[in-house]
Amino acid sequence: MTTPAERAQLLTPAAVEAAYGLIQPYVHRTPLLTCKTLDSIASTPQSPESLVGTPFEGQTPARPKFRLFFKCENLQRIGAFKARGAFHALLRLIEERGEEEVKRRGVITHSSGNHAQALALAASTLHIPAHIVMPSISTSSKIAGTRSYGAEVIFSGSTSVEREAVVAEVQAKTDAILVPPYDDFNIICGQGTTALELEAQYKEQVRSGTLDAVITPVGGGGLNSGVATFFSDKSTRVFGAEPAFEGADDCRRGLQAGERVSKVSTLTIADGLRTPVGLLNWEVISNKRKVEGVFAVTEEQIMATMRLVLERMKVVVEPSAVVGLAVCLFDEEFRKRVEEEGGEKGWDVAVVFSGGNTTVEAIAKLFG
Amino acid sequence: MTTPAERAQLLTPAAVEAAYGLIQPYVHRTPLLTCKTLDSIASTPQSPESLVGTPFEGQTPARPKFRLFFKCENLQRIGAFKARGAFHALLRLIEERGEEEVKRRGVITHSSGNHAQALALAASTLHIPAHIVMPSISTSSKIAGTRSYGAEVIFSGSTSVEREAVVAEVQAKTDAILVPPYDDFNIICGQGTTALELEAQYKEQVRSGTLDAVITPVGGGGLNSGVATFFSDKSTRVFGAEPAFEGADDCRRGLQAGERVSKVSTLTIADGLRTPVGLLNWEVISNKRKVEGVFAVTEEQIMATMRLVLERMKVVVEPSAVVGLAVCLFDEEFRKRVEEEGGEKGWDVAVVFSGGNTTVEAIAKLFG
Repeated sequence: MTTPAERAQLLTPAAVEAAYGLIQPYVHRTPLLTCKTLDSIASTPQSPESLVGTPFEGQTPARPKFRLFFKCENLQRIGAFKARGAFHALLRLIEERGEEEVKRRGVITHSSGNHAQALALAASTLHIPAHIVMPSISTSSKIAGTRSYGAEVIFSGSTSVEREAVVAEVQAKTDAILVPPYDDFNIICGQGTTALELEAQYKEQVRSGTLDAVITPVGGGGLNSGVATFFSDKSTRVFGAEPAFEGADDCRRGLQAGERVSKVSTLTIADGLRTPVGLLNWEVISNKRKVEGVFAVTEEQIMATMRLVLERMKVVVEPSAVVGLAVCLFDEEFRKRVEEEGGEKGWDVAVVFSGGNTTVEAIAKLFG
Repeated sequence: MTTPAERAQLLTPAAVEAAYGLIQPYVHRTPLLTCKTLDSIASTPQSPESLVGTPFEGQTPARPKFRLFFKCENLQRIGAFKARGAFHALLRLIEERGEEEVKRRGVITHSSGNHAQALALAASTLHIPAHIVMPSISTSSKIAGTRSYGAEVIFSGSTSVEREAVVAEVQAKTDAILVPPYDDFNIICGQGTTALELEAQYKEQVRSGTLDAVITPVGGGGLNSGVATFFSDKSTRVFGAEPAFEGADDCRRGLQAGERVSKVSTLTIADGLRTPVGLLNWEVISNKRKVEGVFAVTEEQIMATMRLVLERMKVVVEPSAVVGLAVCLFDEEFRKRVEEEGGEKGWDVAVVFSGGNTTVEAIAKLFG
């Protein structure tokens, strides 16, 4: 076995381009949208009152200038970027082990979220049996969603020990191959295709501009490390965003401490970002030349941002999807940097909306 | 003064094309989206149980085949198609009376909804003073929205007598020119540009197909009669959709009775569709060669459809926007017609999403 640091060496822009060649027929080229209203809100200084109680209290609010480009992976198949990684992982498995073996053994994962549906979709498309271990407390819509793609759903307790025991049990019976949700070379390259697409779309739309930065959510870190891999030989800066609630900002804290935080227990409303960042992902994200910084936002900032996206942009996003935009709107450290480095011209910033899998009931619970 | 029937003679496709020439620099070319999930749901027969208690109880559910094309006027400026009519009305006023007179007198309307914001935006863009009479019970977000475009908001009581008294008062003082929300030649031609655009987009996307039908909401009827005007010399059929609640289906009932219903009092959740159809609009919509039929849906069907659009298509729509799609999903008379006339091939149907002006609180109130 190679170490994460050794495997990280192989994470190159070319690996992301190769992934795109494989998955392109299976995923949507999701739109890259703009919104003048959000540009204007992001480019307006925050009120001094709104900084009271933050580390920036008493300072002059930053005056950054943003042109925002929203990569709408909420409009991706199964409603999240996870479809990219899942298709890539399965297509590589077939390439490496042969179709016959993969179809005979099938694949397995444990997830209560978007990875479950993504793997179920990719497996059914490629005619591979899929076993998805889900906590028995999962919402019925998620269970139904996963089953609707033809996967077998097996229930477990909700702790990681309980889930892994059920995975081991199913593997003993079926010999199914584990497809991890984020801490995996092929998953990272698959998610990185988001960056490849958005850069091409940016160039189509803004013929003589430069994409100054990209910001994505960081949960397990598959999306962020994939995006950073693609941009690692380009001038576009990559940033990450996390919820701060109950220590969900494990990546940001790990970067400060110089050591990955391996355990997180949080009930942030950004439920796709409750996991600690993976080992291989950490190798990329903790490399300053690849990811320039990770910022954290409060639950209130996530809700205010989600409201703006729903009411002003009119697109449906899940709470996890908006943490990057929340950093642009509210984080004074980030905003000061845009002001200082962007100057009068400002920055062109791509914000990845990672997913849109929410329900009207969940919206009602948040805002009712 | 000419009669509505005489003015209706002048509502021609060429008049819509001329309107488009004028307003094009000021409005968005909103996207025409497709959604495989909604095609599949619409093309699945309803269960016999779901027809119990309806006029179709006991009949074999229809087996229509739909390919749906969603014209997203929820992504239009101010979040609704109303921007088209408002810009057209003001640009024509300037053309007919001269910029000096229009700027001196200003414009006025009464509306608590999307027309208020649309007129405020168009007036501020063209540097014309605008007075908007709104019921004092309007929600603060709508008042703020209208003011944010620089219009003067004047409050009135909520009955039409009270509102018209305030309009007369302001007009006596300012000589402001009234711009009606829907019952007006120029407004109708402006809204009709929605049809011109969606037909062009359909042809770009489906190179060798025919757009079999278009369905739009019917409130005052500006959108539906404008769309029907554009398609009046083409093979594409035009249909209308209304809420049925508390008699909001005034247009459908009027067509059955052979006479326009002039008074409606309903609190349907489709709050943009609470008004009776206008006189000039009625001339178009009651012409069978222009509009082939108007269908009505229940509050539950509107909510179920709104849920599908938010959760599956991930775009934010207001309840009024989805009545056309609700007809496609639930109305057995319409579905049987698609089955019979469309056969194996089915129908390509454009559904106009008229607006997206809702709030997370309103969604919470509906679904919480």
